[in-house]
Amino acid sequence: MIPKTHPRYRSLITRERLADYTKKGIVSLEGLTSHGRGEAFDYLLGEETSASALEAEKLAAAMILSASYPVISVNGNTAALAAKEIASLQQACGAKAEVNLFHRTDDRIKAITDLLTDAGVILIKGPVDRYIPLEHDRGLCHHDGIYSADVILVPLEDGDRAEALVSLGKKVIAIDLNPLSRTARTATLPVIDELTRALPNITRFCKTLNKNECQDMISKINSPGFIRDAIECIKGKLSDVLD
Amino acid sequence: MIPKTHPRYRSLITRERLADYTKKGIVSLEGLTSHGRGEAFDYLLGEETSASALEAEKLAAAMILSASYPVISVNGNTAALAAKEIASLQQACGAKAEVNLFHRTDDRIKAITDLLTDAGVILIKGPVDRYIPLEHDRGLCHHDGIYSADVILVPLEDGDRAEALVSLGKKVIAIDLNPLSRTARTATLPVIDELTRALPNITRFCKTLNKNECQDMISKINSPGFIRDAIECIKGKLSDVLD
Repeated sequence: MIPKTHPRYRSLITRERLADYTKKGIVSLEGLTSHGRGEAFDYLLGEETSASALEAEKLAAAMILSASYPVISVNGNTAALAAKEIASLQQACGAKAEVNLFHRTDDRIKAITDLLTDAGVILIKGPVDRYIPLEHDRGLCHHDGIYSADVILVPLEDGDRAEALVSLGKKVIAIDLNPLSRTARTATLPVIDELTRALPNITRFCKTLNKNECQDMISKINSPGFIRDAIECIKGKLSDVLD
Repeated sequence: MIPKTHPRYRSLITRERLADYTKKGIVSLEGLTSHGRGEAFDYLLGEETSASALEAEKLAAAMILSASYPVISVNGNTAALAAKEIASLQQACGAKAEVNLFHRTDDRIKAITDLLTDAGVILIKGPVDRYIPLEHDRGLCHHDGIYSADVILVPLEDGDRAEALVSLGKKVIAIDLNPLSRTARTATLPVIDELTRALPNITRFCKTLNKNECQDMISKINSPGFIRDAIECIKGKLSDVLD
């Protein structure tokens, strides 16, 4: 039990929640380590949405609203941290959603599907096939999901998959706290923010943006600019510590 | 199974090893997240021992060699990552070693004790008592271990425990990749480096330092300087990315 007096109580409670989801088979053991990696970058970013990240979240909404076939790819950590936020986004934008796992087993697919369905997410069901050019089960996806998508939102994704999706001609929106990651560098649009802050912002923009303006907005996306902004933000926070 | 073609193969293999140790009850689920947090800082530090960290490792050896009763405190992650390195350090410096856990159960204590003993670490055995001013089981330690120590090496430690040990008048050497952590800021000497790089360096200095010089060396320890150096190192790496 974590004492409430602990200065990092909130972060430790989230860790504990993820640990519980690991026991339920939703989060993989490797996923816990990935979460810690993200936690460090969030800490360095000041645990808040920067003005630059908010701009990226607006553009993410514009990309989703302009898409012919937008799909949200959900992995174990995303389901554990933000099942409700995914449901709200799906309601606001009408995107399809599918479960995609690095460490894929039938049991995990079922546990994650149940969690997301209970939270109100409507998932693509049925068989998957190796449509993504990746080794092992990581290449599996749905024909009427990622395979058919023009715009894919991939929260907390592995760099390999982000690269593979881009190589298939997909427009990829990544949500990733590490501005140096291959995922962030490869994505059409990197949203460098924490998942449970980023998703409600994207949902809000999906509800309020004027669809006619979206095409013009997304023609001006400068993804290296968002990476540069996040790196400058971290450098600024580090300099504050030194003062 | 992680494909060898993955660009972060080594880091993923370490994660997999820690995941295996979790299944064996040695690493806690929360410990996996902590590892990820450290991983991010190591990545930002360039995954190498800086000149400043090497200097800290030399001073760590000087502190241990000058101590009347040095003790190494070992937790689950330290045992999983560096059991052999702890054994080599103990052989070189003659320090006592004891197991101290944030998430303490008899089964974990036994599993970690077995792992360390098999690797050649000689552990303090017998009963523990609440000698450290901390809530719950985190206050437990051995009378002829941490309680009696003047210098304690705490790799990968929680800030609470580092603070509590300092409040007891102990000299604390922390090994921690996060230069902003309370652990690093509280320690008498923060070694801001990755565990399996830091420990062999400290061991080597324990074998080669002239004991007569140690007292003079440690009188000049500037712990905020090591934190500043690490932060500047990260800022430099981030600037390189922007160039």
